[in-house]
Amino acid sequence: MSEYQQLANAIRALSMDGVQKAKSGHPGAPLGMADMAEALWRGFLRHNPKNPHWANRDRFILSNGHASMLIYSLLHLTGYDLSIEDLKQFRQLDSKTPGHPEHGEVPGVETTTGPLGQGLANSVGFALAEQLLAHEFNRPGFDIVDHYTYVFMGDGCLMEGISHEACSLAGTLGLGKLIALYDSNGISIDGEIKNWFGDDPVKRFESYHWHVQEVNGHDGEALRQAIAAAQAEKERPSIIICHTTIGKGSPNKQGKESCHGAPLGDEEIALTRKALGWEYPPFVIPDEIYAKWSAVEAGAKAEGEWNELFAKYKAQYPELASEFERRMKGELPVDLAQKALAWAQDLQNNPAKLATRKAGQNALDFFGALLPELLGGSADLAPSNLTMNKASHSVMPHELKGNYIHWGVREFVMCAAMNGIVLHGGFRPYGGTFLIFSEYARNAIRMAALMKIPTLFVFTHDSIGVGEDGPTHEPIEQTATLRLVPNLDTWRPCDQVETAVAWTQMIERKCGPSDIVLTRQGLEQMPRTPEQIAAIAKGGYILKDCEGTPDLIYIATGSEVALAFHAAEELAQEGKKVRVVSMPCCEEFDRQSAEYKEQVLPSAVRNRVAIEAGTTTTWYKYVGLDGKVLGLDHYGASAPADKLFERYGFTVANAVAVGKSLLK
Amino acid sequence: MSEYQQLANAIRALSMDGVQKAKSGHPGAPLGMADMAEALWRGFLRHNPKNPHWANRDRFILSNGHASMLIYSLLHLTGYDLSIEDLKQFRQLDSKTPGHPEHGEVPGVETTTGPLGQGLANSVGFALAEQLLAHEFNRPGFDIVDHYTYVFMGDGCLMEGISHEACSLAGTLGLGKLIALYDSNGISIDGEIKNWFGDDPVKRFESYHWHVQEVNGHDGEALRQAIAAAQAEKERPSIIICHTTIGKGSPNKQGKESCHGAPLGDEEIALTRKALGWEYPPFVIPDEIYAKWSAVEAGAKAEGEWNELFAKYKAQYPELASEFERRMKGELPVDLAQKALAWAQDLQNNPAKLATRKAGQNALDFFGALLPELLGGSADLAPSNLTMNKASHSVMPHELKGNYIHWGVREFVMCAAMNGIVLHGGFRPYGGTFLIFSEYARNAIRMAALMKIPTLFVFTHDSIGVGEDGPTHEPIEQTATLRLVPNLDTWRPCDQVETAVAWTQMIERKCGPSDIVLTRQGLEQMPRTPEQIAAIAKGGYILKDCEGTPDLIYIATGSEVALAFHAAEELAQEGKKVRVVSMPCCEEFDRQSAEYKEQVLPSAVRNRVAIEAGTTTTWYKYVGLDGKVLGLDHYGASAPADKLFERYGFTVANAVAVGKSLLK
Repeated sequence: MSEYQQLANAIRALSMDGVQKAKSGHPGAPLGMADMAEALWRGFLRHNPKNPHWANRDRFILSNGHASMLIYSLLHLTGYDLSIEDLKQFRQLDSKTPGHPEHGEVPGVETTTGPLGQGLANSVGFALAEQLLAHEFNRPGFDIVDHYTYVFMGDGCLMEGISHEACSLAGTLGLGKLIALYDSNGISIDGEIKNWFGDDPVKRFESYHWHVQEVNGHDGEALRQAIAAAQAEKERPSIIICHTTIGKGSPNKQGKESCHGAPLGDEEIALTRKALGWEYPPFVIPDEIYAKWSAVEAGAKAEGEWNELFAKYKAQYPELASEFERRMKGELPVDLAQKALAWAQDLQNNPAKLATRKAGQNALDFFGALLPELLGGSADLAPSNLTMNKASHSVMPHELKGNYIHWGVREFVMCAAMNGIVLHGGFRPYGGTFLIFSEYARNAIRMAALMKIPTLFVFTHDSIGVGEDGPTHEPIEQTATLRLVPNLDTWRPCDQVETAVAWTQMIERKCGPSDIVLTRQGLEQMPRTPEQIAAIAKGGYILKDCEGTPDLIYIATGSEVALAFHAAEELAQEGKKVRVVSMPCCEEFDRQSAEYKEQVLPSAVRNRVAIEAGTTTTWYKYVGLDGKVLGLDHYGASAPADKLFERYGFTVANAVAVGKSLLK
Repeated sequence: MSEYQQLANAIRALSMDGVQKAKSGHPGAPLGMADMAEALWRGFLRHNPKNPHWANRDRFILSNGHASMLIYSLLHLTGYDLSIEDLKQFRQLDSKTPGHPEHGEVPGVETTTGPLGQGLANSVGFALAEQLLAHEFNRPGFDIVDHYTYVFMGDGCLMEGISHEACSLAGTLGLGKLIALYDSNGISIDGEIKNWFGDDPVKRFESYHWHVQEVNGHDGEALRQAIAAAQAEKERPSIIICHTTIGKGSPNKQGKESCHGAPLGDEEIALTRKALGWEYPPFVIPDEIYAKWSAVEAGAKAEGEWNELFAKYKAQYPELASEFERRMKGELPVDLAQKALAWAQDLQNNPAKLATRKAGQNALDFFGALLPELLGGSADLAPSNLTMNKASHSVMPHELKGNYIHWGVREFVMCAAMNGIVLHGGFRPYGGTFLIFSEYARNAIRMAALMKIPTLFVFTHDSIGVGEDGPTHEPIEQTATLRLVPNLDTWRPCDQVETAVAWTQMIERKCGPSDIVLTRQGLEQMPRTPEQIAAIAKGGYILKDCEGTPDLIYIATGSEVALAFHAAEELAQEGKKVRVVSMPCCEEFDRQSAEYKEQVLPSAVRNRVAIEAGTTTTWYKYVGLDGKVLGLDHYGASAPADKLFERYGFTVANAVAVGKSLLK
């Protein structure tokens, strides 16, 4: 047995033991990819187990995340803070070894994977961030940003549509430092994939203009040659198609779907140990094998050399170096919040009737001038989303510089790759599409929220205000469903001032993603005091009030705020005491103190009407069983927007009527 | 000018005039595809404008639906019930010519398109349905099912990930009668696509094992030759890459993104008329051109011949013929509902602790034996979703027979192609994936709801009950967000009896899609009277009651119903009057009479606790400002499921405590 094989067997042993102990998990993929992992991690990967945050480390992404025991074994063997006891706790409550690799929970895991294809899409973001950052910060003799992005992926990843979006874009742009190793084992959960996935991967990736190689995925030497060749290719991303056997080493289960998603069983594990020539008990790795796997020394040396280089760079380019450090830490300029508030006040003083998508573009102009880390983009809707700002420069194929990405008609990879860019560090990406097509990217938005990373999503054309394009393009339930995603903040501002504050809050948020939902159509500007402007950031605030306890409270968002405002004016003329609460961000409002919430929405006032041109259900949380919701629980239609608002009752007269129906 | 060109110019004229009059729309694509449309519709398409429902018509799908004026022009010119006045009402309220083609609103539109790539995915469903139905019903000399499926698609469709899923599957299966015409014009909204979409489409489609041709998309003769060659290819789907100029004919705007999404303007339209040699005023088509376009006579003849054939078939195979007619009408066997109710009663009498996914499989066994039109499938999760039933036979590549489709790891195309299958007629498809991955298919589910078609979605592993796979795989907000989709029914049954009734309701529903959300883990069976079994179909019903007006009402779904039940038992022992409402389908409950709803949830009883292992927001609609929700507004974790339920408070003790907190 070669040393390569023996070392790969350490992964196999830990993986099958971990899954067996958990009585749950996926042994087949780690056993099948063990040789690929050995070749990459021992032969090429530049990383420092003692500092998983080293800025210039190579990034490794396990897109087929169900093979989590593979990466946990690798992290353990190479010297990360992941002990053998941690491996024994695989898939247990509060362990550092969850069922799928989770960024933030496991040191050395660059991104959370499991939902297939998204790790691959993340890796496109990582590779793109590396290139853009290198262009911005490297100087002659100082390649301070210079690393590879490696991704492992399986048949499942390559069946998913997002793999097409990711690889087509990566090939078009020419992401030469992206290297993908494809675990081609021909087996998926339903059985032999030839019956549902007959693609020729060589032709497929050639069609994307990738550098394509095929190797025996169990041949350590061939794998090393292929990875070296992939590194040498500078202009094209590389795929190494590794022909492997799932569950490699298991005499009775290898090559079969039975080893995919269930423990091998004690008996088969014993047989596998024998077949592999692996003589050690469960979870025992001999010291000499640990020694050969350890990357601690090499990692310290690699980072040490880079630290020296960076120190020299800092001496020569002090401003650039401290800007690089700021960017990689994700820190904002200290005076940003103050400048933004002054700007919002300025907008309040200069009222304008604008579509909030246009107000959003103005915000991007404002922040774009202050934040070079803003990296814009749109899924082929730049002129509609208004996502380009005055500082935008388009990134072009094989010219990987600039700060605006034309993602093409590819919403899912846009959002997933933005997550990769955030995780890489150095940028604050935002990307736009029509709100309705947030659905194409839904799970990537959720993954940002799950990972607690501040990706920014711009969704325009946010209601029946879309008009003529009709119901296929008119959001009804989308804003409400986004609000239900845990740890995602959704902003729906009502005018340019709320849009400015919303963008400020989104940019300042560090612990999770935000989306902003913007109109196609022009919106009237609301009057506000400086105190009210400051209160926008609370997510919900009193925009218009009455003397004493209100008879009625209108709660509204976005394009419906003006409607509530004018309805309240009308009722006030009739002597009713009416309050209007603008609620641009329910999540932010929910996080306020009980006192503040009681002040805005007093429990005793049960006459409440929520108005939003969208699904009604979620508003009962604020209006209760005694209130009413003026919304839309059916699809829209194709017509000029004003006709639709009228047809569906979004008129001041109807808002007044609904309010009055409670006042009787 | 050739006759082909002159006839194509009729489309161009109507399209640019329609968009101009609406002051809104997309002229570039119809002008660019006019020659393709002329060649296909005049040279090949077998259809009968006077009967858009003829069972054996060729299907035509416009996947790039923003080119709606193209299909409206074609329908008008060939003789469908779409007048010149209708064309003048393009994009106006209540017109028959909405902004994007809408199935059910426009005669001759086979599917609603606009969200890019989905029309292509629908077309895979149409083509598959044709083949499966042909295998089932055709007899020697009686090819009663024998038509082509044609799809037009653009660059946007082919950038979307779903195009990969669709074309990979179509190629693997060998859908020889699917013919795609690709409008390759090199322009998308952001400009020249070479900067974000550099794929080589020839290699790409060869990698999918398609038959690939390239032609000048403005050459009527070349197009005809290519379509004929595509028809002759029986084993592989065909793509004809049509090189076109967007906005063809417009002297100043053709070939540019400026003609994509806005009217050409009166001046440019005049110049275009001149350049095209089209001398007629807006919306005027000379009779001789109408005559050459009309498909009325040819269509009547084609359908007439088929009717004769079918009459003979009916004489020879009367049972098969009436079964074909039943299936194409979407009618159920008359005794189905009665049998299903008896079966549910039988299950109630034979209680079992089952995972509802297993109960779902039992339901599929039951209905599979009665309904040959049930066409199952899963996105590579058959053994987990339990979507195969005893009557299932897998459809295999180049053996297009059977009733179970292995969709591969492709959730989006599964759902979109199922929509195509429903629209074709003859089948009731259902498809499974994990609930969390409904997100990958989100917009296809919505499209079914928008089209009011009864596609069936099976989503298993519905909560933190997923357990060890962890938060990437654990639904939190998914059930709630599905409930917000207008016209989609979401069922979350609590045991095998509710599962049986849910499946019955789903199958009996004709006017929209349904999804069923099922557990991984075993659930206790609840006691019920025959009246209670009958009430399940109402979506919400009293499962356990008390004497007189309740002090407290628990509302629960799925795996949390037993929790509510036992909490109520405990409180009853303490002398409290507690009701338990099981709410397997909120949408169905909401449709009940006000009296019934008041009976189940009396307005006066404000002590209400909703329990569901998912996001809380939507439950306030039923518990109001005075009630509480025992739910989950954060992500789960990786651990055995019982540990997670305990950690997050889904215990009888906590349910009792929450109930008591209201009773104070």
